[in-house]
Amino acid sequence: MTGAAYLTGLIGAGIGPSLSPALHEREADRHGLRLLYRVIDIDRLGLGPEAVGELVRAARSLGFDGLNITHPCKQLVIEHLDELSPGAAALGAVNTVVFRDGRAVGHNTDVTGFARSFARGLPGVPTGRVVQLGAGGAGAAVAHALLTLGTDRLALADTDHARAVALATALNAHFGPGRASALPGRDLAGRLARADGLVHATPTGMAGHPGLPLPAGLLRPGLWVAEVVYRPLDTELVRRARELGCATLDGGAMAVFQAADAFRLFTGLEPHPDRMLDDFADLVGAPTP
Amino acid sequence: MTGAAYLTGLIGAGIGPSLSPALHEREADRHGLRLLYRVIDIDRLGLGPEAVGELVRAARSLGFDGLNITHPCKQLVIEHLDELSPGAAALGAVNTVVFRDGRAVGHNTDVTGFARSFARGLPGVPTGRVVQLGAGGAGAAVAHALLTLGTDRLALADTDHARAVALATALNAHFGPGRASALPGRDLAGRLARADGLVHATPTGMAGHPGLPLPAGLLRPGLWVAEVVYRPLDTELVRRARELGCATLDGGAMAVFQAADAFRLFTGLEPHPDRMLDDFADLVGAPTP
Repeated sequence: MTGAAYLTGLIGAGIGPSLSPALHEREADRHGLRLLYRVIDIDRLGLGPEAVGELVRAARSLGFDGLNITHPCKQLVIEHLDELSPGAAALGAVNTVVFRDGRAVGHNTDVTGFARSFARGLPGVPTGRVVQLGAGGAGAAVAHALLTLGTDRLALADTDHARAVALATALNAHFGPGRASALPGRDLAGRLARADGLVHATPTGMAGHPGLPLPAGLLRPGLWVAEVVYRPLDTELVRRARELGCATLDGGAMAVFQAADAFRLFTGLEPHPDRMLDDFADLVGAPTP
Repeated sequence: MTGAAYLTGLIGAGIGPSLSPALHEREADRHGLRLLYRVIDIDRLGLGPEAVGELVRAARSLGFDGLNITHPCKQLVIEHLDELSPGAAALGAVNTVVFRDGRAVGHNTDVTGFARSFARGLPGVPTGRVVQLGAGGAGAAVAHALLTLGTDRLALADTDHARAVALATALNAHFGPGRASALPGRDLAGRLARADGLVHATPTGMAGHPGLPLPAGLLRPGLWVAEVVYRPLDTELVRRARELGCATLDGGAMAVFQAADAFRLFTGLEPHPDRMLDDFADLVGAPTP
């Protein structure tokens, strides 16, 4: 240990099993940095989401260099920061706070992380017409990334249709009218038939929610499929799509690249995403793809 | 980095130049531990000494494993702890807090650190009659260590005589009547002539306060001399005493052993005091003795 020292952490609810400490600390070891990443679980502390402001202030006083922020604090944290990156301001959600020169600056590496993982994992795929399942927090970040990457028409389907409408409205206000629309479930088959790709951003397929988020028959060769779920890495959706010959991007990539982007913000150093992807596969107990 | 991870730090005023981060982090490296030691300077934060309670609570929430506490918070911190070690309770001052099993436990490694450094650096010297200069915070810790080590008669001299009287009274209440007494300046020569050793616990001799804390003529061969000042390691007192052939203990030993004892409390692992002494000499820019 001869390099600089960094103190970082994650604030959120129910985050005991987070892989972020191992991802950040292993990457720091490769750089010879002394980096510690602490999990600050508001559930375990018996605190409500609004405690995030007090925790962020305390972390700054106690020598933290930065924090990741996750559910349910990504919006609540904003009023406690001095400055936002343009991406975080556009999304209205912060997952990374950097303390520097006495200021707390909010970023969103869910957006940049998905964009990087997409460019790396699905290089050259057409992105004009995309169907996205899920319009929650992860869905909003992914949608921002897709429209930034150049998607012309993003159709958002959510079991809570009003949520899809609200997200589409916000996206169009930011990226221009007509870029995003809410997709009623009955129109999913037709829209997917004409889409370049499918992005999945709901919990279906997670260890506790097995299954497929759409009828298997709607998948077809030629459609690329990007997954946000990463536990397991091989969701039923990714497996079925791969069997059909679809280009696929598993959820590990986004998880890794949001961590890699946060690592870059915390330390100013360029992370090794390939090694982090290996670490991630190792940590979730899956073979390296 | 494959060992456990520890987050530690120091709360106090004006502690920017503290050597504790380097001492703890270098020792942790030898054990293969991921350990970070943060300096939490209340002056820099614009906080008063009473903020120590809030800082200790925040540190616990944010995943600290333990803290060192220094001036001016060693007494103030006590009311914010769940439990005290017997040594810290007797002294009424805490310089080390360990968070474990949901409890904050206060210790004092100034006392144990001086006792260990004394036993190692001045082995076998007679300790029956000791004269101590200085009855402030460091002086109180050293006096507790000396009486615990078996000193029968401890004479305390301080330019603030009332402070010496108060410390002697507290020591006699704890260790038994007659063990400690306040020594008027005019009696110093006579008492030193009959003493086994001299302990120096005032700031005289520090970089900003050069000089000797007593007339040079009062030093004599056969008297051992223990110093608390460690910047520089070679104070004029230590140098003069060494020239006379006195057995001497410099202030680095106490500084190192209080850190070593805190490291053991934080991690449960046995530190390497010889290596830490080398580090310390290296850090203060002095040749290893």
